[in-house]
Order: sequence, then C-alpha cells, then structure tokens
Amino acid sequence: MILGAALDELGEAGYGAFSIESVAERAGVGKATIYRHWRHKLALIADAFRMLQDEGDPELVTGTPREKLERVVRHVAQVAKHSPFSKCLPALIDAAERDPELRTFHRRFQAEARRPLIVLLEQGIKSGDFPRHLNAELAAFSLLGAIFFCRLMTSKPFDPDRARELVDVVLGQRPTG
Amino acid sequence: MILGAALDELGEAGYGAFSIESVAERAGVGKATIYRHWRHKLALIADAFRMLQDEGDPELVTGTPREKLERVVRHVAQVAKHSPFSKCLPALIDAAERDPELRTFHRRFQAEARRPLIVLLEQGIKSGDFPRHLNAELAAFSLLGAIFFCRLMTSKPFDPDRARELVDVVLGQRPTG
Repeated sequence: MILGAALDELGEAGYGAFSIESVAERAGVGKATIYRHWRHKLALIADAFRMLQDEGDPELVTGTPREKLERVVRHVAQVAKHSPFSKCLPALIDAAERDPELRTFHRRFQAEARRPLIVLLEQGIKSGDFPRHLNAELAAFSLLGAIFFCRLMTSKPFDPDRARELVDVVLGQRPTG
Repeated sequence: MILGAALDELGEAGYGAFSIESVAERAGVGKATIYRHWRHKLALIADAFRMLQDEGDPELVTGTPREKLERVVRHVAQVAKHSPFSKCLPALIDAAERDPELRTFHRRFQAEARRPLIVLLEQGIKSGDFPRHLNAELAAFSLLGAIFFCRLMTSKPFDPDRARELVDVVLGQRPTG
C-alpha cells in the first residue's frame, strides 16, 4: 500500500516535489512507519518500481518467436498507454537528468526491463525466424522507442493493436493478416 | 542572449525551478528587461525553442531519397547527443505532464519538428524508393523513437554514425557498404 502510494505521489508531484509526508498521508500511515523501512525517497521509489517489475510480464513460453515478439510489444504498448510506471516515467526521466543516484537507478532498471526483449530477438535471429542481418539491440530500440516516443512526445499513446504492424516495420516484413 | 540563457536555465534547473531572475543573471540583464518582452516563463521558453528550430536543419534538396533520409536521421542523432534542445528535453517532458499549457506547446513543437521527416518518408514510399507497404508515420516513430529512447532511457546516446544502420532496420533492407 505504501509502495502504491509512493508511485501515485511520484506520478502526480514529480521527483523534486515528492514528499514522504504526502506518501504517508496517501497510504494512511504515519511518517515514522515509512522512515523505519526506507531511509530516503530514492529507496522507497526503487522498491516501488521493483514491485511493478515483479508483476505481470507476458508469458514467453508458448508460440512462435514471432508470436512471442508481438506479445511483448503489445504488452509494452499497454504499459505505456496506462500504468503506474508510465505515469511516473516523465518524473523519472527528469530526475535522472538532475540526480546522479536516481540516474543510476533509472538506467539500470530500464536495462533490466528491456533485457527479455533483446534476448527474444537474439534467439529469433539465431534460429532464422527473424532476419539474420538484424542487430537485436537496435531492433529493440526501434520497437520500444516507437512506443515511448508516442507516450512522451505526441498526444496519442501508441495503440497496442498496432503491435503487429510495428513488428512488421522493424522485421522488414509485409503486413500479414 | 536572453533566449540562450533561458535554455541554459531550463536544462539545468528544470521547469519547476526555472526562474526569470536566474535567466536575467545568466544573461547579464535586469529582470524588467525580460518581463518587458515575455510576460511569463512559458512565453520565454517557447521563443527560445522557436529560435532553435530556425537554426540548422539539414538540407533536403540534393541526393536520393535514401541519402536525404540518412541525413535527417544523422542530424536528429547529433541533436539528441549534444544540443541545448536535448539538454532541455527531460525538463520539457516532465513539465508537459504537469502543466497543460506547456503540454500543448511541447506536443505542437514536436509535431512540427518531425513533419519534414514524415513528408520525406511519404515521398519515398510514393516514388517506390522506400517499401510501398511502409506507414510513413510509424516508420518515423521507429527512427526517432530509437534515437530518443537511447537519450532518455539508456546511458549511451545513439551514435550518429549508426544512422545508416538504423535506416536499414526500419526500411527492412540489408546493411549496405
């Protein structure tokens, strides 16, 4: 409950104005309770993001490499369209620019979050399911980038129903179906 | 000089802490001078960004559609790697989340900035230089997205020398040269 309140506070107030007092109020607990577990706001925010990461990634066991890839891209688009993570992202990006510790956390967290997608691309390239000449990391940047570009720089989030079309662009294939 | 100082202030302080007083100090002028021309900080920041936009876009007259596209992508990568605009981008993204007027400005400014790239893609698709089935806007999101994803979510800006490789991914072509 405290972690959820921390995400709400970060999304609404931003990192600079983030206050433990306000998180305590949102969660209906005393400030002391929070300080007993988290000594400063970064520790609290980091734990809140770890909680998010432990929740719902899509399953990557069944299906062809292409189907798995579309499933991941659709999931990322859904998260970017509407989630506590997406609501906090602008605050994180700005804080990463100003606070070295937050920057280290943000970059490490992002690197871990995109790792499964890169592995999936690497496997598909190796197996010949995806074009052999593709660079997995660059393809991941294009897929994730298109989605987060829409979230951060346009008025319309990327439509999760266009996941297949986006995968087609990056894999260099004609639209199917 | 005042506009340059406004960009420095925005990049370093962020939008919330942005102060006209501090801009005046950076520019070596009185506060009153600034208020005479710009009634509030958004007006000042908007003019500063318009000044940036009027400066150096790459020429789009000579060369094949492919060469022009690479030139634009390389230019965007250079801007994302090192420029006053790039330094201010995290502050803009965060402020757009919290301030409706800044949000309107940010989205309009971004839409104008990517327009030439989308037009270039549309023309190349129409002429058959780029794959016929490509969606110009989605391709632009993938190209720009990869570059800004690296700027905002990773520890390494996108290398402008990889412009051709990125164009290859999105046009679905084998690396050349």
